[in-house]
Order: sequence, then C-alpha cells, then structure tokens
Amino acid sequence: MAEKKPSIGIIGGTGKTGGWFARFFEKAGYTVKVASRSTSLTPKEVASASDVVIISVPIADTVPVITELGPLVKKGGLLMDLTSIKKEPVAAMLSCAKSEVIGCHPMFGPGVSSMKGQAVIVCSARSKKWKAWLVKLLKDAGANLQEATPEEHDRMMAVIQGMMHFSSIAFCHALKELDVNINEAMRFTSPVFQLSLYMNGRILNQDPKLYADIELLNPFVKESVEAYMNSVSRLSGIIESKDEQAFLQYFGAAAKHLGNFRIKAEQESDHLIEQMNGRGR
Amino acid sequence: MAEKKPSIGIIGGTGKTGGWFARFFEKAGYTVKVASRSTSLTPKEVASASDVVIISVPIADTVPVITELGPLVKKGGLLMDLTSIKKEPVAAMLSCAKSEVIGCHPMFGPGVSSMKGQAVIVCSARSKKWKAWLVKLLKDAGANLQEATPEEHDRMMAVIQGMMHFSSIAFCHALKELDVNINEAMRFTSPVFQLSLYMNGRILNQDPKLYADIELLNPFVKESVEAYMNSVSRLSGIIESKDEQAFLQYFGAAAKHLGNFRIKAEQESDHLIEQMNGRGR
Repeated sequence: MAEKKPSIGIIGGTGKTGGWFARFFEKAGYTVKVASRSTSLTPKEVASASDVVIISVPIADTVPVITELGPLVKKGGLLMDLTSIKKEPVAAMLSCAKSEVIGCHPMFGPGVSSMKGQAVIVCSARSKKWKAWLVKLLKDAGANLQEATPEEHDRMMAVIQGMMHFSSIAFCHALKELDVNINEAMRFTSPVFQLSLYMNGRILNQDPKLYADIELLNPFVKESVEAYMNSVSRLSGIIESKDEQAFLQYFGAAAKHLGNFRIKAEQESDHLIEQMNGRGR
Repeated sequence: MAEKKPSIGIIGGTGKTGGWFARFFEKAGYTVKVASRSTSLTPKEVASASDVVIISVPIADTVPVITELGPLVKKGGLLMDLTSIKKEPVAAMLSCAKSEVIGCHPMFGPGVSSMKGQAVIVCSARSKKWKAWLVKLLKDAGANLQEATPEEHDRMMAVIQGMMHFSSIAFCHALKELDVNINEAMRFTSPVFQLSLYMNGRILNQDPKLYADIELLNPFVKESVEAYMNSVSRLSGIIESKDEQAFLQYFGAAAKHLGNFRIKAEQESDHLIEQMNGRGR
C-alpha cells in the first residue's frame, strides 16, 4: 500500500513561479493549496493546514511573510522558500519555525516546460526526513540538483545573477546613450554580438522589480559589482592610454583564469551560432 | 564564350583570413597568388601582377602595407582590404593607388565553412566596374551584404566589436578578481549565465593582438567605451545607494530603447537555451 502523500501549501501560489510549482506538484499527484492576496484561503490557513509550506513571494516580501507564517508551520512539517536570496530567508525560517527548514532556489524561469536538466540549488538548513523527500522529488524530475550553504548560494548568485544582469543592463543602457539603432546594429552584426544581444535583450524583457531586488538585496552583489567596476576602469584606462602591452597582459590574465573552459566555450558557441544562423536572421 | 576571370592577389594570404579567401576564390575558379613574409613571391610582385589586390594583414600593418603596395596596383585593377577598421585604410588606399578602391570587412571568423548568411560590409570608395563584380560574387556566395561609408562602419564596429569585447573581457577579468571557480559557477548556473559565459569565453580564446588592435586603433572605440563606463558608473551608484526607484527608471530607459527587439530576444534566446540544454551540460 502506498504511503499517503504529504499536502503542499504554496504561499504566493498564484504568481508565476508559485503557479509553476503548484502545477508541478499536482502533476506528481499531490494535493496543493495555494494562497495569495487574492485567494479565498488565507496564507495563515494554508500555512497551518499543509505538511509542506512553500514561500514563493517577491524577494523583499519573503522575510516578512516568513516571520508571519513560520510559527504556524507544523513541527513535523517542512518550511521552504524559493527566492533568489538564501541567507536572510533561511535564517528567518530557522528562527521563526519549529518545523524542518530548507532553502531552495530553482535556477529556471517559469517559461520552461520541465525541470529536466535545470539547476536547482538546495540549502538544507534543518532537515532530515524532508530533505530525502525533496531530493528524490527533484532527481525524479531530472533536475540538476546542487547543494550549498546559504552563504555559498548568495555569493555565487551575486556573480551569476548580480554581476551578469549588471553588465547586461549597463550594456543596453550604453546603446541608448550612444543612440545606436538596434535594427541597424543587427544588419551589421557579428554572430557573437547578435547572440550576446539576444541574451541582454532577454534580461531587459524580465520583471524590473525582481531584478532590482536581486541587485539591491543580495548582500554580496556590492562586492561583485565593485570587482566588475574595477575591471572596467582598468581596461578603460589601458584603452585610453593605447598601451598595447598592458592590454595583452590584462587579456592574458583573464584568459588564463578561464583555462580550458575557453576551448569548451568556443565549441559550444560554434554550435549555438550554427543554430542561430539556421533560423535565418 | 566566358570572359577571362580576373587574377587575384592576396597580401597576407598565408594568414587565417587571407587563407580563407584564397580557398574561397580558388573554389570559385579564380587564379590566386598569395604573398606574405614567408612566400617566394614577394608582396610587390603579387601587387603588380594581379587584377584584384587584397590586403589581409594585421590591423596595425594595414596602412603601411597599403602605402608600400598601393602605387603598384594596375590603374584598371581593384585594391581592397579586409581589415576590421575602414576609415584610415580606405583613405590610404584612395591616396596611394590609381586603381579602383573598395574597403571590405567580412564579419565572420575563418572557422566558418561558408559565407552563407554571414554579414560582409562593403565600403565602395572609388569603384564602378569592380563593385558590380564584388557584389555579384558575395551575393552568389549567400553573404548578407551591407554597404556603409568607412566612418559608418567604424562607428558601428566600435560598438559591435569594441564595446562588446570590452564588456566581455572585463567580465572575465572580474571573475578572476573575485576568484570565481568557473567549473563551480557552471554547476550552479542559470541558462543565461551559461550561454553568456560561452560567448565571453569564446572571445577570450581569440588572438589577443587582434583584439588589442580593434580596441586601440578604431578611432570611435573611445566614445563607446566611455558611454559604457558612464552606464556602469551610474548603475553601480544606484546599487550602492539601494535606490529602487532609480534602478527601475534606469532599467526602464534601457528596456524602452530596445523596444520590440526584447520580444525577439526572448524568443531567440529561448530557442538557443533549448538547443544548449539538448546537448546536455
């Protein structure tokens, strides 16, 4: 006889990410209750009645919602969040709830059809029974599961999200300052510029508030943005002074840091450029 | 009866780009002579004996080589260069040669198997007969032919190459400064970071001297790098002061400039991310 499946409650379950996970759990045969400002069930009712309580609200609201609902989660249950920052939310969950606690960050957007191959970062803060359940669930769905401490997560995201979005947004802003017509640039483009501008343009097509929260609320973004600023300043100075030797050294230092990844990068980008050209311009 | 095909001479024809074009012309049935520092035929011999003389040498050598060989090109012939900068080389060709003059910039690397769909920029400086020949040749090969003045070309390349390489090289340099382990970052990556890092890593796998020449010798790079520096400084200041309203405005201004390109960018990048995931991580 099959064991009874735990009930799932998603706070913010009418949002994009929360909705994605509601459908994910329903497909897997779970009973899912969702709550948000617009549902008849209140967040408190859902938090009290579910075995697994998942917080999926905007970054800036995450700690306040945890503080309000954490004490209501069953002692034998699981409190988990899905936000892009882990240090503060996990600390808040640990201090507010008596339940098991896991911080989780799915590294994919709600546009994907499945979790297959997608990175999901798990910070198992106070968990035993539920961690085994979550790991099995994610692995069965084909996720690329990665464990990290909340601090490791936030430091990594300060680069993967913070520094990446920073440089892309600034790049597009500079296109505006230079009054570069995008269609004109696409006419003259190299494949590398075209593909990179697709990535930058994609970032500028996302929710500005989410991106503001990532830049302003991740405590380690300051450090990565400063490192990027310093690198940009040094390279700009080298170009200003037309110092070829300094340019070659700077380029060489960055290339050396990437090591063999450069070869993989060239191979993978060759393939992607072919795919892009195959679709026509 | 077919007209006799013009003879082609490529100065720097043993280099990567020169060699690519030597093979391209040979396949199309032309007689090609190549000259470089290591060939038995001298550049002067090839420049005097060919109907079409193509200069394919490093950017910094282009004007000196034009100055030396330009006067030797037949009055009824064509002098053309392939370098990534057009203003100075075209001016040098116009003043040194009595022949027709075209500046040409193929926007693809020598790794591609064909010219099909690749942008090729043509600056027709003093040409009539040979321009028609070149346009037919490129169109028959499937190139995405774009005409521009030398100044339009250089201004565009200051963004498409100069600003693009600048931000990518600085990004990888910042990864080094932050001591980010690339393999570790790839474990935790989002698809956007992964794909962007492939593009950045590809750039760091190219010839540093070529990239130094593009940054240091294109007269308009200074302006685009300054615009990027200003954008980076402003965004950094906004993050430092945790000013959400200012972030939203800055993001919105860049997004607005991109217009509908953002939607295309999201669609195209969705497709590319799928392709990337299909190859496995």
